[in-house]
Amino acid sequence: MKEKADIGVVGLAVMGENLILNMEGKGFTVACFNRTVDKVDAFVRGRGKGRNIIGCGSLKELAGSLSRPRKVLMMVKAGGAVDELIETIAPFLEPGDILIDGGNSHFSDTSRRCRDAREKGLMFVGAGISGGEEGALKGPSIMPGGDAEAWPHIRPILQSIAAKVDDDVPCCEWLGPDAAGHFVKMVHNGIEYGDMQLIAEAYHLMSRIPGMSHSRMSSIFAEWNGRELDSYLIEITSRILSFRDEESGKPLVDVILDTAGQKGTGKWTSQVGLELEVGIPQIAESVFARSLSAVKDERIAASRILVVNPPAFTWDESQFLAHLEKAVYAAKICSYAQGFQLLYAASREFGWNLRYSDIAQIWRNGCIIRARFLVDIREAFKQDPDLSNLLLAPYFSSVILDAQDPWRQTVKCAVDLGIPVPTIASALNYFDSYRCERLPANLIQAQRDFFGAHRYERTDRPRGETFHTNWTGKD
Amino acid sequence: MKEKADIGVVGLAVMGENLILNMEGKGFTVACFNRTVDKVDAFVRGRGKGRNIIGCGSLKELAGSLSRPRKVLMMVKAGGAVDELIETIAPFLEPGDILIDGGNSHFSDTSRRCRDAREKGLMFVGAGISGGEEGALKGPSIMPGGDAEAWPHIRPILQSIAAKVDDDVPCCEWLGPDAAGHFVKMVHNGIEYGDMQLIAEAYHLMSRIPGMSHSRMSSIFAEWNGRELDSYLIEITSRILSFRDEESGKPLVDVILDTAGQKGTGKWTSQVGLELEVGIPQIAESVFARSLSAVKDERIAASRILVVNPPAFTWDESQFLAHLEKAVYAAKICSYAQGFQLLYAASREFGWNLRYSDIAQIWRNGCIIRARFLVDIREAFKQDPDLSNLLLAPYFSSVILDAQDPWRQTVKCAVDLGIPVPTIASALNYFDSYRCERLPANLIQAQRDFFGAHRYERTDRPRGETFHTNWTGKD
Repeated sequence: MKEKADIGVVGLAVMGENLILNMEGKGFTVACFNRTVDKVDAFVRGRGKGRNIIGCGSLKELAGSLSRPRKVLMMVKAGGAVDELIETIAPFLEPGDILIDGGNSHFSDTSRRCRDAREKGLMFVGAGISGGEEGALKGPSIMPGGDAEAWPHIRPILQSIAAKVDDDVPCCEWLGPDAAGHFVKMVHNGIEYGDMQLIAEAYHLMSRIPGMSHSRMSSIFAEWNGRELDSYLIEITSRILSFRDEESGKPLVDVILDTAGQKGTGKWTSQVGLELEVGIPQIAESVFARSLSAVKDERIAASRILVVNPPAFTWDESQFLAHLEKAVYAAKICSYAQGFQLLYAASREFGWNLRYSDIAQIWRNGCIIRARFLVDIREAFKQDPDLSNLLLAPYFSSVILDAQDPWRQTVKCAVDLGIPVPTIASALNYFDSYRCERLPANLIQAQRDFFGAHRYERTDRPRGETFHTNWTGKD
Repeated sequence: MKEKADIGVVGLAVMGENLILNMEGKGFTVACFNRTVDKVDAFVRGRGKGRNIIGCGSLKELAGSLSRPRKVLMMVKAGGAVDELIETIAPFLEPGDILIDGGNSHFSDTSRRCRDAREKGLMFVGAGISGGEEGALKGPSIMPGGDAEAWPHIRPILQSIAAKVDDDVPCCEWLGPDAAGHFVKMVHNGIEYGDMQLIAEAYHLMSRIPGMSHSRMSSIFAEWNGRELDSYLIEITSRILSFRDEESGKPLVDVILDTAGQKGTGKWTSQVGLELEVGIPQIAESVFARSLSAVKDERIAASRILVVNPPAFTWDESQFLAHLEKAVYAAKICSYAQGFQLLYAASREFGWNLRYSDIAQIWRNGCIIRARFLVDIREAFKQDPDLSNLLLAPYFSSVILDAQDPWRQTVKCAVDLGIPVPTIASALNYFDSYRCERLPANLIQAQRDFFGAHRYERTDRPRGETFHTNWTGKD
């Protein structure tokens, strides 16, 4: 073991432990600390036994055990715990030392911590880490941003533990100053909400096909996973659907309560989209869908009152499934298009100069939204770094135009059946809005001018010149 | 003129001026001040000439001219200007004096100002005022909340200037403590965004009927205004559509640019809905629709690339319009249902004890969303003050079940035509989600447990008991 550790990790929940084991496996010596110090002993004697891991009984000891500049990866709960930790460890650090927040902190907190750290002479990095527990151990996707001078010092460690694509390209690149890293991770999670809801809608529709079994649905998702939709979430959906509950003998998914939880990142993404006035309705719909799932008792009551008898429906199973697959892919493209629109807006607003092809690259492996089509997204941004919308890239515009008829059929079918498809439908409305040269917002502007004298622009005058009409002819 | 004024108004933009003239017309003496003092003179010598209006050259003079407890209505721009004004005027006030913020302040600012004012011995009231310029002059809808002890002092003034229904019932009632008033006003505005977008979608669809003219559309909206959809926004839509541009000779709405502005209250409503985890997707869609309208140049570019040739479509005009009217009404009901769900959540979260029938009453006249069906909403809450969702009230469940087939036809038609109907469709998905006993959120919970060990509940076990499955069979 080296005399000094290469990096320190604070916070020994599963994610923290797995990242330590991952780093140690790549040849780094890791010091660790946890507020409940018993956990340090348990880890060092348990999963960390015989490894180059230095358990520390205090933050002071942790700081003392690190080579300089010190690198401390904080894996504690987002929020006040991060501020507390920074305050407690700062006295043991020296100018040039590096604090890395690996949790899901809100980007505005990260912004503030970057500024505060700089005042203390420290360097701060907000690094989003995706991949869950398994990713942390075997190779997560890492989205670091903040003080750029820190990057050369932490890059060898972060890139070596990150997931790889094309043999050895790491899913970890420097994203930009300030909160760029945590912002990108937040958008990753917003897209994750969207992907999960899309799959849930597909599952809901599929499950209504007469005679459809869970094992058959599992096979269908497995087939999809061999084509354009190839992705981690489709893969695990297939596995979930074939998983049997030992207790009841039923498919486990059938006995799981239909009330989805949320930890906040989807909500944040939607709120920021609203704040920056970027159209990301589909991501917001996926968050609201979770909120609606949560009011289970209300839904039970409503299901007794708002009874709908769907019309007789003739199922053409293979056509229906073929349409559904295209609909899901088209809607998925819209969801990512919206996510990237939000990234553009943030990059403009905060001056981050985000490189979208790098972001697609980072998301290709290790993270929850990893998917084959991120190769195509990366390619689209490589060909045109200033692409104004993913939908306009040649590959994606051709895919979506090809998919649109099946997509429309799928939405109409769901409408007939009375099955909610909030994101498949929202995606279609996004597509039809975005490609609409003249939206009816002229009427909205007229209304606003009518009741509130908010003024409007004219199609026959230069932008920026505004007009007010006395609509009523009264004073 | 009385020696002392009954109330002071700070801020002489159109809203402030009109409220003063309204109050004076009801027999109150009003003192006024404006930061640019020239405006005070101009107003007192102009629109205020010969009236019981005392123009003041300073805040000190304003305070000195008021009977006690002093009542100061602030009609300044929401944000920092309100804080500045409070700070500047406070030294001239005495314990028990009342500050009323009549602007569109964010409810969290109002909360803070209530607390701060109490510390200074002052009473603070956040009063949302809706009705635009005309409403301010002739009778707005007023939504006051804050320090309840202030209410008896300001009630005579506010209720006398407010709009009335059923001859003499004022559209102004005390709503609750803290920021209750401004919160209700914010939700009012969120609903307003939803109503306007719904009408815009109807107009968009209608305009595609072969041979449809603006004057015909104007007549159709006028007809609608005689039935369930009877409302101010439908009425002005009819008038807008028949308004000709003098310059071009075209319908004015045709030369207005289709990029809708927003001032923030719709965004706030959606953000708070996300924060409180209430499902209000339709309101959010209406806000995002404005954002999408704003990227006009992108849309023009996209319209050249994402070209869709709608299928040959056989129009049955009268049936189409009949369906559309029902679709708009059904979607409008869903929008209000969502707005009230947000009010329930806030009332629970902040302990406001909101009375929903009073809110429906306040919105019946004077404000932008005034509509005939608010009588039915008021009745629904009178019959069941704990109604869990407007959709479950007997009248509304019967209306919406009756409307649902035309509604579904309308959405399917829009899907075929490629015309975006983000809120008509979102409303339908809300309806179908809310009345769905078993949503596919079980799959989402399984996915979350699979990749993040987030745990799930089971349908065969008590709520609150959570489970984790080792889905992969690995350690």
